[in-house]
Amino acid sequence: MAQFSDLENAIGTLVNQFHGASGSSSPTLKADEFKSLLSSQMPNMAKSFLSEQGMGDIMKKMGVKDGEGISFKHFWSLIQTVATSQHSLLAGQGGCKCILL
Amino acid sequence: MAQFSDLENAIGTLVNQFHGASGSSSPTLKADEFKSLLSSQMPNMAKSFLSEQGMGDIMKKMGVKDGEGISFKHFWSLIQTVATSQHSLLAGQGGCKCILL
Repeated sequence: MAQFSDLENAIGTLVNQFHGASGSSSPTLKADEFKSLLSSQMPNMAKSFLSEQGMGDIMKKMGVKDGEGISFKHFWSLIQTVATSQHSLLAGQGGCKCILL
Repeated sequence: MAQFSDLENAIGTLVNQFHGASGSSSPTLKADEFKSLLSSQMPNMAKSFLSEQGMGDIMKKMGVKDGEGISFKHFWSLIQTVATSQHSLLAGQGGCKCILL
């Protein structure tokens, strides 16, 4: 198997984490499966999101409709939000002027 | 400093890799900086992209206009493409039926 770079591994991690969270190998995650993915993998984010806005609001932000499962696309939009906010944190710390999303 | 999960670290890697590729701490990457980021961090992808389509086509796909630098948003759209194709590779291998982007 080929060696992967840090960046490729990071992308692989994102894909695999979503993938591994489905107990039933279904195309989408159930709300419960998604919730435990968030709690285990994004404890810091989960804490603030869960207390401030609740799960329903996260789902809404991700574009998940009532009763719908969470697709990789939904998950991806959440990651984008996190990456953007992390990016602006870095910007704040280091005086970087990267253009945000 | 707080411990981060695999997922959080992966997001951090994506942000930091982009960040670290700018020699001048400019808000965007120059074409050359972006090219060496791709070559060092995505050698597998870079190989096929560079031979099949050339750099100009990647830039176009990312929505970069002539003479414009590469922003984090452009980079993000590339990562999304890579994640999607990796996701469909996994789907092909494991019989997973995840809904693609």
